[in-house]
Amino acid sequence: MSDEKSSRPKARLPRGFRDRGAAEIAAERRMLDTIRGVYENYGFEALETPFIEYTDALGKFLPDQDRPNEGVFSFQDDDGQWLSLRYDLTAPLARYVAQNQQRLPRPFRRYQIGTNFRNEKPGPGRFREFVQCDADTVGSASPSADAEMLMMFSDALQAVGLKPTDFVVKMNSRKLLDGVLEAAGLSVDGERSRRGVVLRAIDKLDRLGIEGVRALLGAGRKDESGDFAKGAELAADQIARVLAFVAPEAGANDPEKMLASIADTVKGSAAGEEGLGELRAIWDILTSCGYHDRVCLDTGIVRGLDYYTGTVFEAQLAIPVVNEDGESVVFGSVGGGGRYDDLVARFTGARVPSVGFSIGVSRLAGALRVEADAGQPLIVVLVLDKNEVGASFRMVSELRAAGIRAEPYVGDAGMKAQLKYADRRGAALAVIEGSDERARGEVTLKDLALGAELAKSVESRAAWVGERVAQLSVKRTELVSEVRKLLTRKG
Amino acid sequence: MSDEKSSRPKARLPRGFRDRGAAEIAAERRMLDTIRGVYENYGFEALETPFIEYTDALGKFLPDQDRPNEGVFSFQDDDGQWLSLRYDLTAPLARYVAQNQQRLPRPFRRYQIGTNFRNEKPGPGRFREFVQCDADTVGSASPSADAEMLMMFSDALQAVGLKPTDFVVKMNSRKLLDGVLEAAGLSVDGERSRRGVVLRAIDKLDRLGIEGVRALLGAGRKDESGDFAKGAELAADQIARVLAFVAPEAGANDPEKMLASIADTVKGSAAGEEGLGELRAIWDILTSCGYHDRVCLDTGIVRGLDYYTGTVFEAQLAIPVVNEDGESVVFGSVGGGGRYDDLVARFTGARVPSVGFSIGVSRLAGALRVEADAGQPLIVVLVLDKNEVGASFRMVSELRAAGIRAEPYVGDAGMKAQLKYADRRGAALAVIEGSDERARGEVTLKDLALGAELAKSVESRAAWVGERVAQLSVKRTELVSEVRKLLTRKG
Repeated sequence: MSDEKSSRPKARLPRGFRDRGAAEIAAERRMLDTIRGVYENYGFEALETPFIEYTDALGKFLPDQDRPNEGVFSFQDDDGQWLSLRYDLTAPLARYVAQNQQRLPRPFRRYQIGTNFRNEKPGPGRFREFVQCDADTVGSASPSADAEMLMMFSDALQAVGLKPTDFVVKMNSRKLLDGVLEAAGLSVDGERSRRGVVLRAIDKLDRLGIEGVRALLGAGRKDESGDFAKGAELAADQIARVLAFVAPEAGANDPEKMLASIADTVKGSAAGEEGLGELRAIWDILTSCGYHDRVCLDTGIVRGLDYYTGTVFEAQLAIPVVNEDGESVVFGSVGGGGRYDDLVARFTGARVPSVGFSIGVSRLAGALRVEADAGQPLIVVLVLDKNEVGASFRMVSELRAAGIRAEPYVGDAGMKAQLKYADRRGAALAVIEGSDERARGEVTLKDLALGAELAKSVESRAAWVGERVAQLSVKRTELVSEVRKLLTRKG
Repeated sequence: MSDEKSSRPKARLPRGFRDRGAAEIAAERRMLDTIRGVYENYGFEALETPFIEYTDALGKFLPDQDRPNEGVFSFQDDDGQWLSLRYDLTAPLARYVAQNQQRLPRPFRRYQIGTNFRNEKPGPGRFREFVQCDADTVGSASPSADAEMLMMFSDALQAVGLKPTDFVVKMNSRKLLDGVLEAAGLSVDGERSRRGVVLRAIDKLDRLGIEGVRALLGAGRKDESGDFAKGAELAADQIARVLAFVAPEAGANDPEKMLASIADTVKGSAAGEEGLGELRAIWDILTSCGYHDRVCLDTGIVRGLDYYTGTVFEAQLAIPVVNEDGESVVFGSVGGGGRYDDLVARFTGARVPSVGFSIGVSRLAGALRVEADAGQPLIVVLVLDKNEVGASFRMVSELRAAGIRAEPYVGDAGMKAQLKYADRRGAALAVIEGSDERARGEVTLKDLALGAELAKSVESRAAWVGERVAQLSVKRTELVSEVRKLLTRKG
C-alpha cells in the first residue's frame, strides 16, 4: 500500500511554468484581439510558424560544439538532428523568409502572436514560457518602415486603452553609438567584443545610474554581492564622450536640439552620420503624421540583444508596471525592437534589411490591469431528483434562450453540496425544484449572495430567517421573468 | 567562400511541422471563437496549462525504464528531472485537478484550446504539432454530465455552421462490451491485454469490415503488406456474440429496440447492466431536451485510447472530410471522448469520475472548408519621392479614417517593384503621386485587377492603352471619395 502510494507521481508544475485561469485568459485575449485588429488594419499579415525548429536554424549552436548551447530546450530527433523549442519569433521568421522569399511580397510584413520558451533560471515574475506579439517588416532598409512600425505600435497602445500621456516609445540608433566610439578613436569593427561590453554597460543606465555605468566603461565595478565585473577599459575622455552621448544634460526634451547635438558628436564618422540621417528621416515622417508626442529620441536606449544593427526602440509606460523581478516600477518596458539586417543572411548569404517590434504580452496585460468583467450573473439549476434531470436541463435551456447565463448541476451529490458548488461558481441565484414544488408547479429561487451576507451578519436564529428571506417561491411557468426581475433588482 | 556557404544552415522545417498563413489562421480563429462562445455559455471555464510538464505527471514512463517512452518530446531539466511537451490536454488537466482540488468547484468544468505534440512518424495530413479543443467535467459520475457534454458539442457544431443533418454524435459504453465478453465467458479483469486486442480489433470495423474484424478476434489476419497480426483467439461463439453486438443487423436506427437488444445481450453481467443503465439515463435526458436527432447509439464505437472506462463518444460528419492520411472520406471523425475515472487517481489514489470531449481543430476547420473571406479590398499608396514619405502616410491615414483598408509602400525600391508589391499583396488599387501631379494637386488611381486583365488579353500596343484605361487622375482633395467610387464600381 505504502509502496503503491510512493510510486504515485506528485501533482506539480516544473519550475518557471504556471497555470492560467479564466480571468487572465479573457483579459489577454481581449487585449490581443485589439492589437491584432490594429496590425491587420495596417496590412500586416498573420503568420504562425511551429513551436519546434531545427536548432541550427535558430542559430543555437556555439562554434566547435555538437550540442545546442544553453538557454533553449532541445532534443534530438530520431534521425539524430537537434530540434529546439523557439525562444523568440524572430529567428523562425528569418527561416520562413529564407525558405519562401521567391513568393513573398517585398517588403514582407507579418505579425505573429505566440508562446516562446527559454531554458533559464526562473525567478519572481520571470517564466520559462511566455507569450510575445511581434510585428516585422522584412526586406526594406527605408526609414519609412521604422516610422510605420512606431506609429502602428503607438496606435496599438492607444487602442488597448492607454492615453498618449501614459506611454512613450523611445528610439535611438546603434549606429550613433558606433559613431561616438569611432569619433573617440575606437575602431568598431576591430573591437566587437569591447563594443559589446560598452553596449551592456549603457543598457544598465536605468539601474546603476551614471556613476555605475562610468565604472563599467572604465576599469570595472564591484556589485552589491561583491562580485567584480570587468569594464570596457575606455580612457577617461572616451568615457566622457560616451556618457555625454547617452545621458545628455540638456535639451533632452527638444528633438531638434538633440539631433543637432548628435550631429556634432558623430561628425566625421560614416556610421554615425548614416544613423543620424535615418533617425532624422524617421522623425520627419512621425512629425508629419502627428506622432511626435508619443515617440521621442533617447540616446540612452540600446536594447540588450546582439543582433540589432541600426535603430532600436523601447516602449515605456508612465504608469506603474510590475517588472520581471516582480517589483512595481514606473516607466516599465512593455516592448521593444529595432533593425536587424543579418538574420536572413545566416541562411542565404544576402543581407535582408528588416525591422521589428515585440510586445511582452503578459507585462503589457499586467500593466493595463485589465480586469476581467465579472461577466453576466450566473444561475445554477440544482438537480434534486435523479430521474428528473431533463426538467433541470429544460429550465437551463429556457434561461439561456432568454439570454441569461445558466447551468445545470451535473454532479452526483446532494443539495448541500450543490449549493456549495453554486457558491464556488460565484452564482447569483440557485433554482431549486423539489418534488413537492414540482407537484404544485413551482420552483424556488435562492439569492446566494444575499443569503451568504445575512448568514455572516446575524445570529443563528435570525440567519435562519435570513435564509428564508433570501429565497422566493415562484411559478414554474414564470421562471424566466422572475429570474430577470430578481437580477434587475440586484443590479 | 564555399566554406562559408557550406557552414550556413539550410532554411527548412523539421518533418511533420508546417507554417500556417493568414487565411487558415483567420478561419480557425473564427471557428474557435464560436466554439468558445458556446462552451462559455454552458458555464465551462477557460484554463491554460503550460506546454511543458514533468514527464512522470504525464504518465509517460514505462515500468523499469529510466527514460520517457516514445511518442513524446522529452528533455532533462538542469536538476536531472525529465520534462515533456504535452501530447494531449487531458493528462495536464488531471495534474491540475490533483494539485488544486481543494479550491475547485466540484464538479469542475473547464475547456482548453491548445497545441499538443506527438513525437511520431509524420505522414500526409498527420503532423507532430496540432491544435485540440477539449471540454471536460471532472468529479461527476452522473449521466447528466455525459448528456451535457453531448448537447454542448452538438450546439457547437451547429454554431460553426453545420446543419443537424450534416453530423451525428455516436455514443456507446465500454462497459457494454465488457458485459458481452463476460457473458461470453471471458473474465475482463483477468484478461486486460486480450480485452485490449478485442477493442483495437473493433476499432478497425470501419476500415476492415466485418470479416477483417472476425479474423482479428480469432486467430489473426494477414494485411495487404503480408504482415500477420495475431488475433484475440476468441472461440467462434464468442466472436459471434461480439460481432452481433458491435454490428447488429437490424434495429440500428431505433434506439429503444437497440437498448432492449443490448439488455438481452449483457443480462447477468454487472458491468454490462451498469453501462446500459448509464446509457439509458443519458438517452432520456437527450430525448427530453430534443437532442435525439443528433446523437445516436452505436455499439461499433470503441475509441482507441486505453484510459476510457465507460461511455465513449465520436462525432462524425456526413459531409466529405480529409482524413489523417490525406484522403477525402465521408463520415470523417472530427472529435471524440468519453468517461475516464482513473486519471486523477494516478496522483491522489482516489478515483475522480470524469468525462470529456476533444475536437480535432484542424480536421473540423478543414471539414467546414471555412473560406477566409477575402476581406476588404486593399489600397497600396506608392512612395515615389523619398522626401515625401509623410505625404503617402497621410493619404493612408485619410483612407483608413474613412474605413478603407490601406497601406503605404515602406520598401526602398522603384515604381515597377512597388507595383509588383501591390500585386503580390492582392491590392485592388494603387495610389500614385508623382512630383508633377503633386504640383497640380492630383494623384493617380491605378486599377490593378483591371490592368492585369487587359494586359493579359490584348496586344502590346492595346495593352499600353489598357494601362491608361486602367488608371485615373483625381484631385488630391477628393482622394477618399474617388477611391470609394472606384471600389463601389468594382463591386
